[in-house]
Amino acid sequence: MKNKKVILTGDRPSGQLHLGHFVGSLKNRVKLQKEYDTYIMIADAQALTDNFENPAKVKDNVLELALDYLAVGIDPTCAKIFIQSQIPELFELATYFLNLVSINRIGHNPTVKEECKSKGFEASVPAGFYLYPLFQVADIVGFNADLVPVGLDQAPMLELARDVVKKFNATYKTEILNMPEPLFGTAGRLSGVDGLAKMSKSLGNAIYLSDDSDVLKKKVRMMYTDPGHIKVEDPGKIEGNIVFEYLDVFCEDKAFVMGLKEHYQRGGLGDMKLKGHLLEVLESVISPIREKREQWKNETGEVQKIVSNGTNLARERARGLLSSVKKEMLIDYEEIIKIST
Amino acid sequence: MKNKKVILTGDRPSGQLHLGHFVGSLKNRVKLQKEYDTYIMIADAQALTDNFENPAKVKDNVLELALDYLAVGIDPTCAKIFIQSQIPELFELATYFLNLVSINRIGHNPTVKEECKSKGFEASVPAGFYLYPLFQVADIVGFNADLVPVGLDQAPMLELARDVVKKFNATYKTEILNMPEPLFGTAGRLSGVDGLAKMSKSLGNAIYLSDDSDVLKKKVRMMYTDPGHIKVEDPGKIEGNIVFEYLDVFCEDKAFVMGLKEHYQRGGLGDMKLKGHLLEVLESVISPIREKREQWKNETGEVQKIVSNGTNLARERARGLLSSVKKEMLIDYEEIIKIST
Repeated sequence: MKNKKVILTGDRPSGQLHLGHFVGSLKNRVKLQKEYDTYIMIADAQALTDNFENPAKVKDNVLELALDYLAVGIDPTCAKIFIQSQIPELFELATYFLNLVSINRIGHNPTVKEECKSKGFEASVPAGFYLYPLFQVADIVGFNADLVPVGLDQAPMLELARDVVKKFNATYKTEILNMPEPLFGTAGRLSGVDGLAKMSKSLGNAIYLSDDSDVLKKKVRMMYTDPGHIKVEDPGKIEGNIVFEYLDVFCEDKAFVMGLKEHYQRGGLGDMKLKGHLLEVLESVISPIREKREQWKNETGEVQKIVSNGTNLARERARGLLSSVKKEMLIDYEEIIKIST
Repeated sequence: MKNKKVILTGDRPSGQLHLGHFVGSLKNRVKLQKEYDTYIMIADAQALTDNFENPAKVKDNVLELALDYLAVGIDPTCAKIFIQSQIPELFELATYFLNLVSINRIGHNPTVKEECKSKGFEASVPAGFYLYPLFQVADIVGFNADLVPVGLDQAPMLELARDVVKKFNATYKTEILNMPEPLFGTAGRLSGVDGLAKMSKSLGNAIYLSDDSDVLKKKVRMMYTDPGHIKVEDPGKIEGNIVFEYLDVFCEDKAFVMGLKEHYQRGGLGDMKLKGHLLEVLESVISPIREKREQWKNETGEVQKIVSNGTNLARERARGLLSSVKKEMLIDYEEIIKIST
């Protein structure tokens, strides 16, 4: 365990996870958890930065998120699932890291600018939301993570983390903080069922890991294909056809998909039939997740124990890191005063 | 104790306290400590926002500041002297309060703008310094303070605190947070010995509470009077004459000061003689402080105990407040998970 590299990753508990998350990060995490010392954060404090007026939504999704993790195959005997707000050391760390970076530098983040626009925050962005990339730095460094799996849009956050680590180590003439590296590559990106944009809860174009068979069938039926493909015998287009995008991502039998593509392009393969194939494939992906989710849901006590345990282990690590950071910054008064904890 | 109103006040440990502090706040605190439940903060975390590159300066001044407090008559049996960084609950609170106010609102603070200018921070102000007024809000609200003694330049900070309290109570439909009121009035303002500006360490125009008799004599001797008052027999001006400003502030015998003023204005009272009177007055103010400081300095163990005790009591109060705040924000998972502390 000691020699494994440390990964920090996680999600905001603001809604259920969907196939976009599965393809973009979850599958990858399941693969990585054996090789790396993995910390998976339920980022409730971060979720509150744009949900502070509706904290119930965040709270209600904390255990739901843990269920999603367990359902896709996160193994609690190796990965630590923890709740961000229960590691106050991260906020203390963020407080001190705020000294190492300018207020403008934090705002120079195309991803956050885009998010602000979409949330209508432009004129007066809440300070918590504006600053969340810096708090994310504390999350990463709080575990002294070696690696952070990132999509392209999270790359600016990791750049900020690297800046802070560099500045800290230089200012306090130390090497205690690891330089976190991005883990690009294995993660994919999935369009929504409408074919218009990336799958996302807020766009209402998502297939959830907890969708039942009926809901799944309905969503596949309304999936965007080729609007020019009207009669069964018409030749159809593959490009921009979401059904084929999904088949490429989820169907293991590549030869079978190739055959379907040829058939569709020359005409004679109807959308209904094609979607029937996809439905079967998606069912084979989702049904084991769905079943596992149901099983865990019947053992809430066990899930609570897993999260408690993960949180305690995470806190232990963050506490150690914070203590080292404070020593370097000379905020250690142990020899001067006695504080009971 | 329970029914007393709560006061939060304090200083950054970035240098020794001087007569400006004595007149502006310390004297007042000594008066208030019996009537109010007083928390006095050694704001080391705040001092680091513009001293992060020189943490030794901050650390070295932590106990010095406590010595200054005890020397001027802060009574540790009623006032709690505590170290800010040892109350991490304040940083956690600040994290959540950041959600309740826009990033621009925090920056709209004439005092901080002025400070940024004087520190050359304008182009790229460190985020920690930019945000310190919001962290000050957490300091105030962390003790659910009823009253905050403020000078005019701190009034914008208290306005921000009031905004946050109002927003919190409205958002979470609660009344747990007290609306902090400013305590104006009794505090005065003192010019530096150069007569050019407010007494301040960075301007090098200060008389410190720990200055010995020789240093004090030297500083009084170079004090700004009336540059037109060249010969003893010349009539001199009172206005802008720092010696008279100090006599007005520190000499209890108002009739004596009146007599000196008349004599000076009609001519015949030399600066040396006048300054001799002031020196006597200042010695009578400073020498008991100096002696008390020396006594406490010989009992470092006792001072450490006082600060330890104050910090533990302060932490207890902040902990209680944070716990109530988190309950209102639904960040209480006690029933869901078990976290060891």
